[in-house]
Amino acid sequence: MEENILVTGGCGFIGSHIIDQLVKDGYFVTVIDDLSAGTNLQYIHNYIKDKKVDFYQFDIRDFEKLLKLDREYSCIIHLAAQPDVKVSVNNPRLDFEVNVDGSFNILELMRKKDIPKMIFASSGGTIYGETQQSNNENQPLKPISNYGAAKAAIEMYCSSYSSLYSMQITSIRLGNIFGPRSTHGVMYDFYRKLKKNPKELVILGDGKQTKTYLYISDTIEAFNLLLNYENKNYFDVFNVSSNETISVTEIADELTEALGLSNVSYMYTGGKRGWKGDIVFTSMDTNKIRSLGWSNKITIREGIKLYVKWLNEQKY
Amino acid sequence: MEENILVTGGCGFIGSHIIDQLVKDGYFVTVIDDLSAGTNLQYIHNYIKDKKVDFYQFDIRDFEKLLKLDREYSCIIHLAAQPDVKVSVNNPRLDFEVNVDGSFNILELMRKKDIPKMIFASSGGTIYGETQQSNNENQPLKPISNYGAAKAAIEMYCSSYSSLYSMQITSIRLGNIFGPRSTHGVMYDFYRKLKKNPKELVILGDGKQTKTYLYISDTIEAFNLLLNYENKNYFDVFNVSSNETISVTEIADELTEALGLSNVSYMYTGGKRGWKGDIVFTSMDTNKIRSLGWSNKITIREGIKLYVKWLNEQKY
Repeated sequence: MEENILVTGGCGFIGSHIIDQLVKDGYFVTVIDDLSAGTNLQYIHNYIKDKKVDFYQFDIRDFEKLLKLDREYSCIIHLAAQPDVKVSVNNPRLDFEVNVDGSFNILELMRKKDIPKMIFASSGGTIYGETQQSNNENQPLKPISNYGAAKAAIEMYCSSYSSLYSMQITSIRLGNIFGPRSTHGVMYDFYRKLKKNPKELVILGDGKQTKTYLYISDTIEAFNLLLNYENKNYFDVFNVSSNETISVTEIADELTEALGLSNVSYMYTGGKRGWKGDIVFTSMDTNKIRSLGWSNKITIREGIKLYVKWLNEQKY
Repeated sequence: MEENILVTGGCGFIGSHIIDQLVKDGYFVTVIDDLSAGTNLQYIHNYIKDKKVDFYQFDIRDFEKLLKLDREYSCIIHLAAQPDVKVSVNNPRLDFEVNVDGSFNILELMRKKDIPKMIFASSGGTIYGETQQSNNENQPLKPISNYGAAKAAIEMYCSSYSSLYSMQITSIRLGNIFGPRSTHGVMYDFYRKLKKNPKELVILGDGKQTKTYLYISDTIEAFNLLLNYENKNYFDVFNVSSNETISVTEIADELTEALGLSNVSYMYTGGKRGWKGDIVFTSMDTNKIRSLGWSNKITIREGIKLYVKWLNEQKY
């Protein structure tokens, strides 16, 4: 029998790539997405037509609608989220309602419908808070943004639910993921700004914020590996990113080079953070996922070139 | 000017003792309590009459009512909670709504009303999960009950709120607190059962569950110390308990002795846990709070005698 997987937030950047992989691997996929993040059905439209994907447009805060889903799912890949750290700082309740209340609904759905497995998209870039070293999975969580707090809070519930109700839950603590279909984040912002004005680039903060990034195809391989990983009746957590870091100014350099620009002058807004809640240094210890055989194939700099190639093909 | 402190859950066991201390120290106290835990106004009645305490009966889930509180508070002591691990396991949504949504309302109240300080009653007995050693504050949190998950989840928000909005938040990770006015927990249950049937005592689990306990007067001293502790613009966490542990069977022995009973036969329900989500061994490293000068004066066994003396004076 065909295995059914439920993907929340399946129309987004990471979600749509995951669905490509799942459909290719023969799964039937149900997607729920409220299309609030400027997303649409462009990447899953053909799958819906070919009856390989079911799509429902609603918000994960709507528990009644979740309960009406009537297939049997072997796994939920939970990606739906309010994705913006800045929004979480300026409108904490909105972020809380989607990322905490909404995610709690997903756990309750699993409990009520006996769904045995979940992969939760957590955030390695925000939950550890501000540290000086490469963060490993056993470190205490000290988020400095509400976005990070929400991800960490739901991991606490992943821990209790997996133990109490015999669920396999795997939390993937992602670095900054980038690549084709992404319309969010510093690389995308710089690209858009440079297209508008190739002479000058405004950079938030002092440009020294240094973070870990991972290209999308390597990210999908990690999800795929962990989908098939047996952590029977237990909660497990994996950092997923490259071992590289890159500063904001270096990203600007790579982008201007990929765009063939020269003499772009950088205007720094100043201050060490790009925004309130921004973490100025993130680096992740990824030995745990690597010990399962995963490794990233694309370096950050190679990834930026591939991403710019895709961006150039769009109508921006 | 008189300092105002807001105490949530102020009619409960720990809350009413804290209010005794606060009134004695000259604070004006506003109490909110929904009186859902079988509590009433008996311990604060005279303070209300003497205009030392204001009382409002409502649930912390009601944010509109919270916003209507019209004094300026220098600190919130947040104790209101659904207190029962078993309820959290059997009715996760109720526990989540009170302990997570309700506590988030308290943090939002602080942000909206510029309340600079909070003491949060967290749970050292449940948030670390099942470990073999004495847990210290820097250990990863791996709750196995939803009660523990909720406390840990709110600590994640205490971390982000303190950092983003310049609040001093201190989380007190309590051991099992007992003593006069407590009508909850294993000691109280055993007392009631032995009063009903002095020949036989039913013990949940195998009686070997071994946990850390702290007497109420020592607990109040810790709250008092941390109320005056300056952790400027930052979140801090303290384990608060004795360094002793005692098994459930040993508690039964102490209680039967304090009641002057002999030849009580113990009937074990079996299994290593008393209930789903029960942690069979809890021990806490309390060096951090001790380094601030706190120490517990009453041993567990002395405390049990004092508690039984109080129970004997009630109308049970």
